[in-house]
Amino acid sequence: MTTPVTFDLETPALLVDEAKLDANISRLANRAGELGVPLRPHIKTAKSIDIARKLLARNAEGLTVSTLKEADYFLEHGITDLFYAVALTPAKVAHVAKLLNGGADLKCLIDSPQAARLCAEAAEHAGIVLPLVIEIDVDGHRAGIQPKSNHFMDLCRYLHGQNHARLCGIMSYGGHSYDLTSPDEMRALSEQHRIALSETKAALEAEGIPCPMTSFGSTPPLLWAERFDGASELRAGVYTFWDAFQAGLGCCNVNDIALSVLTTVNGIYPDKNRLIVDAGALALSADRSTAGRDFDAGFGLVCDADGNLIDDLIVEGVNQEHGLVSTKSGAPIVFEDFSIGAQLRILPNHACMTAAAYQAYNIIGADGSITGQWPRINHW
Amino acid sequence: MTTPVTFDLETPALLVDEAKLDANISRLANRAGELGVPLRPHIKTAKSIDIARKLLARNAEGLTVSTLKEADYFLEHGITDLFYAVALTPAKVAHVAKLLNGGADLKCLIDSPQAARLCAEAAEHAGIVLPLVIEIDVDGHRAGIQPKSNHFMDLCRYLHGQNHARLCGIMSYGGHSYDLTSPDEMRALSEQHRIALSETKAALEAEGIPCPMTSFGSTPPLLWAERFDGASELRAGVYTFWDAFQAGLGCCNVNDIALSVLTTVNGIYPDKNRLIVDAGALALSADRSTAGRDFDAGFGLVCDADGNLIDDLIVEGVNQEHGLVSTKSGAPIVFEDFSIGAQLRILPNHACMTAAAYQAYNIIGADGSITGQWPRINHW
Repeated sequence: MTTPVTFDLETPALLVDEAKLDANISRLANRAGELGVPLRPHIKTAKSIDIARKLLARNAEGLTVSTLKEADYFLEHGITDLFYAVALTPAKVAHVAKLLNGGADLKCLIDSPQAARLCAEAAEHAGIVLPLVIEIDVDGHRAGIQPKSNHFMDLCRYLHGQNHARLCGIMSYGGHSYDLTSPDEMRALSEQHRIALSETKAALEAEGIPCPMTSFGSTPPLLWAERFDGASELRAGVYTFWDAFQAGLGCCNVNDIALSVLTTVNGIYPDKNRLIVDAGALALSADRSTAGRDFDAGFGLVCDADGNLIDDLIVEGVNQEHGLVSTKSGAPIVFEDFSIGAQLRILPNHACMTAAAYQAYNIIGADGSITGQWPRINHW
Repeated sequence: MTTPVTFDLETPALLVDEAKLDANISRLANRAGELGVPLRPHIKTAKSIDIARKLLARNAEGLTVSTLKEADYFLEHGITDLFYAVALTPAKVAHVAKLLNGGADLKCLIDSPQAARLCAEAAEHAGIVLPLVIEIDVDGHRAGIQPKSNHFMDLCRYLHGQNHARLCGIMSYGGHSYDLTSPDEMRALSEQHRIALSETKAALEAEGIPCPMTSFGSTPPLLWAERFDGASELRAGVYTFWDAFQAGLGCCNVNDIALSVLTTVNGIYPDKNRLIVDAGALALSADRSTAGRDFDAGFGLVCDADGNLIDDLIVEGVNQEHGLVSTKSGAPIVFEDFSIGAQLRILPNHACMTAAAYQAYNIIGADGSITGQWPRINHW
């Protein structure tokens, strides 16, 4: 029988195991050290100043942010070196100006001549020089401009000659890695990005256009890459917590996952081979990244309240405030192990999405008890 | 070409068209009037006092809530008649006691003898009489106790004899309606629930156990039911806003959808037949309720900034802060209609999930401009 109540928290609640968090941060910091390239951790996962400080203490320079609200928050906490890695739009330039005027060393992203022109016009209107990074398309995945196209060189020349924008460099995103399955494929993808960044930088410098920033992002390739010279920084975020999707890819073990949702059993249905818990689509997120993969984790993997994985148990369905727990194999649940009121922990399918439903992390210390609460900065 | 910027809001932002909201509220209020049964609107969709007041002004008595935090919030705003329609656990009884002692007429839900016993013990400890509703299982969908079982009658007798709990009645949830496709099937399901509630109430009263509350919930059956006598109240929530899933079921027209996410085009990719917008998995939610249905709406339907549907355009994919827009048919996007910085509106796949990502609604008045902001109560 599971211990009825381990934590004095109203459920659902978000937990972080600090020892696992620290180990995850160390692992990627060491990896970046081996590659000889600093990290620019993507704080879209953690959105926490407490975690940002841990990340910045280990082989990292500055943060990657996914919203300007994150930029506001981290600047207020004294972190100035920021890269907003979502393509900028003209209407956001006034907000960027406020950040720059407030002391942020904020770099923004664009991926087209039209965006560059419109954002430079908005920058002139705001009275700033807008620091811009161009996204290049290396693997055809999501976005970016072809670095060998005339459009790209014209864009770089335009920015180089601009009074209200300046070119800080280039970036690429290896999102295609999430469609790959073997370390060899990951290594090949890493190498493709490394070479594209290096060659593009060289082509720009040959034209007299400086390109100090050559930023690469996506977690899995970093783990398998043999070299990343030519990149000035590496962006990754989900490694802070890891999740079931990343474990399925082989990036981590399930036991490395530092983030979980504490929930309570509030329904027991042997006839349906189902437990119901009070963490549903809002508490876990409706993310189904693992759908259709052989490591499909439903909406999360189920552990006891102490964090020990319960073999074969997953959240197979969610409604807004209901999680429907069953076995992945279809084998009967061992119902005598569960009672109404028992706490469980759910390891997330996708950590970034799950964490976003909460205002704070409850931190589990070395002795297994809650040692503190760390706030998150959500919304836009 | 879309008008570049219609609203002076940083995107993504949540919009509510007040005229559509009012029409939706009227429609269900009138429907409840026809059925002769009051509504107990499920405020898990809107989580807003401004919208609660509109709902309560029209053929409704009290609210259904999905979290105790909602109960706290609405009680603070003077709304006392509340039903917490997620199965209660013993550790939450102390919070319920606080609400009851604070003046709430709060009913809670259980679905098993074990839950009743443990919650009654916790109620004794808290020094309260816990008002309980039993969920009965009518259609085998999610939860509830078989109303014709000995377990059920034993449970009712137990509660009837309890000093620290009292039986307020029974409820059922017609979630199975979401698997049905025709009005005839919906009518049959409604009738199944109506009869089960009526017969169960009669069986209890025949034993001298009062059963004043017989509550039915699920939106689609209410629209098609021919009668709901025997129910003391009807629970529904999503009709406040409607969404693409409900439109696909035939519960509303796409033009009735009152909720949308304002977003900005930040990437234009003719080679991929793709627009990128700044509303991704967090801004729209990762909900894919319509997946596999012939009315699959991806992660949302796309409108211009004034709310006019753009035929065939859907959000086909999302990353955390990226929405990938393409055509459902595969036909080429009319790219000359879109520029970087243009605002669009996305109609949600599932309104409850999308709204939950925001702290407030931006209200669009009759002239199409923003007339105010209404806060939401999120989290737990």
